[in-house]
Amino acid sequence: MNVELISIGDELLIGQTVNTNAAWMGAEFSLRGGNVVHTTVIQDTEEAIIDAVDRALTRVDVVILTGGLGPTKDDITKHTLCKYFNTELEINRDVLEHVKSFFTSRGKEMLDVNVQQAALPKKASILKNDVGTASGMWFEQDGKVLISLPGVPYEMKYLMNRWIFDKLGKQFPMTAIYHQTMHIQGLGESFLAERIEDIENEMRQENIGLAFLPSPGQLRLRFTSEVNPENKELIAGFMRQIEERLPRYVYGRGKEQLNQVVGELLASRKATIGTVESCTGGSLATEIVGVPGSSAYFEGSFITYSYDLKESLAGVSMADIKKHGAVSEEVVLQMARGGQKMLGVDYCLAASGIAGPGGATPGKPVGTVWIAMASPEKVIAKKFLFGDHRERNIRKTVLTALNLLRCELLEL
Amino acid sequence: MNVELISIGDELLIGQTVNTNAAWMGAEFSLRGGNVVHTTVIQDTEEAIIDAVDRALTRVDVVILTGGLGPTKDDITKHTLCKYFNTELEINRDVLEHVKSFFTSRGKEMLDVNVQQAALPKKASILKNDVGTASGMWFEQDGKVLISLPGVPYEMKYLMNRWIFDKLGKQFPMTAIYHQTMHIQGLGESFLAERIEDIENEMRQENIGLAFLPSPGQLRLRFTSEVNPENKELIAGFMRQIEERLPRYVYGRGKEQLNQVVGELLASRKATIGTVESCTGGSLATEIVGVPGSSAYFEGSFITYSYDLKESLAGVSMADIKKHGAVSEEVVLQMARGGQKMLGVDYCLAASGIAGPGGATPGKPVGTVWIAMASPEKVIAKKFLFGDHRERNIRKTVLTALNLLRCELLEL
Repeated sequence: MNVELISIGDELLIGQTVNTNAAWMGAEFSLRGGNVVHTTVIQDTEEAIIDAVDRALTRVDVVILTGGLGPTKDDITKHTLCKYFNTELEINRDVLEHVKSFFTSRGKEMLDVNVQQAALPKKASILKNDVGTASGMWFEQDGKVLISLPGVPYEMKYLMNRWIFDKLGKQFPMTAIYHQTMHIQGLGESFLAERIEDIENEMRQENIGLAFLPSPGQLRLRFTSEVNPENKELIAGFMRQIEERLPRYVYGRGKEQLNQVVGELLASRKATIGTVESCTGGSLATEIVGVPGSSAYFEGSFITYSYDLKESLAGVSMADIKKHGAVSEEVVLQMARGGQKMLGVDYCLAASGIAGPGGATPGKPVGTVWIAMASPEKVIAKKFLFGDHRERNIRKTVLTALNLLRCELLEL
Repeated sequence: MNVELISIGDELLIGQTVNTNAAWMGAEFSLRGGNVVHTTVIQDTEEAIIDAVDRALTRVDVVILTGGLGPTKDDITKHTLCKYFNTELEINRDVLEHVKSFFTSRGKEMLDVNVQQAALPKKASILKNDVGTASGMWFEQDGKVLISLPGVPYEMKYLMNRWIFDKLGKQFPMTAIYHQTMHIQGLGESFLAERIEDIENEMRQENIGLAFLPSPGQLRLRFTSEVNPENKELIAGFMRQIEERLPRYVYGRGKEQLNQVVGELLASRKATIGTVESCTGGSLATEIVGVPGSSAYFEGSFITYSYDLKESLAGVSMADIKKHGAVSEEVVLQMARGGQKMLGVDYCLAASGIAGPGGATPGKPVGTVWIAMASPEKVIAKKFLFGDHRERNIRKTVLTALNLLRCELLEL
């Protein structure tokens, strides 16, 4: 199945928005056995839309348009598609009901322009959008499929996952690729490559692909092969080998995320957690509560940006702050211990560092971060040197702290 | 000057890489007066390249290809362009010297494939790449220009900035598009459209474009026109009209972000801020400290996820929590007041809500959020009904709270 993506919108052409929709679809289709062979970004004009659709339908089986379906006047996709497929708009009662309830459930009044979102091309099958008011539209012509979706990533993904991948799978044969992923924290790409070089060589001999996909503070390993039971076994074996070799670094597989893994460990031990944060400014807590149901173990946090609050909330000695600086082993240990006591939690993570761009002092460059963990048995602190980039430093601190806790909970 | 971008490479089509090159070029051209009207991503095959180039040269003045110039075998752009422009490769001595010194200066050995990087099309002007080994190539035909560049963002940007923008500027009159953006919080797309319908109609009569660009909890308005002093005046006037009509919603222009706007207001008043967070779990603090230099006004926060910490840290009455629930006006007002006192800050924002997916109770569906703000003069609370989606609810709560504070600081 060959697919072409057409994104409509000036905001993409003038670079105000990066085309992450195309990347997401490309990745999803490639995992499911579809083949994105062409992606295009065009202007929001009838001429550009008709030209792009016309060309696309000559070269692929499936054309997916995104964008240009909002309620405001600058969106002309729907009208253009009516013209192209020689059909007309009619109010779809189900959609109208849905749009109405979408607004009433939010205590908002429905406007005329919203009613128009229920006006849809007669010839299209309608894909119900439960998370927004712009429906998906599915056209067929001469054995080819054209799908029009809203450009909002969240709504586009919902419609793809809820309806479209299934429907396409029934209509077109897809040669799926088997793949598995593994998640690693605390080990950089080249260090990991060195540690598993022998395993990677064995994999190559078995025609199993291995990709390193780094992001700030963590790394995904992706294993790919043709689909057959033998390959599944082989990949499972290689994954076990890596996990057994690097238990402090491998924290999960597939859709597992570090905050979930840690959350499940805490929940299963009926343990509670809190944080005391300086440079991360709440990001560590945000990550922990990013898991639905985290209230079972997360109690609360202090964000102690100022010296005064480090002292008054977490009980850090002002003399130690002045002597060693706020970014120091002494201070971060006291933050973790103080938080454990004052928040009344079993485990407390604390972080104090220089996220940048400012704040460096002699001997403490931007990227210096102290992380501490207090458990019922002990309190430990570690120093890290991350890098120059504020957001990446914060992200790395968050993931490193969570992995420190994971290793403690698993006694690794 | 109309421009089309063609990016070559499977890594873009399968979503392993996001096409940030296209976004960067779109933004740069739009600032300099070029008009990117079409961007395409294609496979690394002769057929796809020739087809895309052929089509592009019919519709624009300038075609820029990126990617497919590396030393490995899967890159065929150079050979395909020779075929297309009916020319052949020859070794360029200057480039060969440059490639050699590129390797020797890094203490690396030069391979045969690297020598081939100095083999370049006779008909092309060569654009020297001081930061890599793949040269840029500039072809001209029938008054149109085709430029081929390496896909590595750093090298592509170097060649654009060093040679190409200047060369293009001499050859083509650039009709810059003038654009401005305005940021809005607290008013949905259709409600905004209704409130400014008359202004939008006036703009249309003046040939000024208006686009609505929504994201969770906020919305950008983009104004576009041809560049001339009259249009600048007109757009400035329309923007002022909208700001004057909707001062509680319009929070900034251009690159301004809500956390910066609020931060500057706090800094200029030498006021301090803290937060007491429940459903947002630290996201509000994270947003505030996302501004470098925020330590000038941000003191710290309580994250009070549990009832006990709401009581012990922020001094919320346990009786009120039990009577009204944690998501209630009474509790959120006490959180804001308690935080203001215990954190010792001038302003305190508090939020308590049901982010979802669980936690709904009769009369309090998922998406119910109470936000409070304590100022030196008063404390107020407002109730919001956001939606079903956890992360979006948290994001909307954060932006809504910051805008509430902005309105207070500006006495709106």
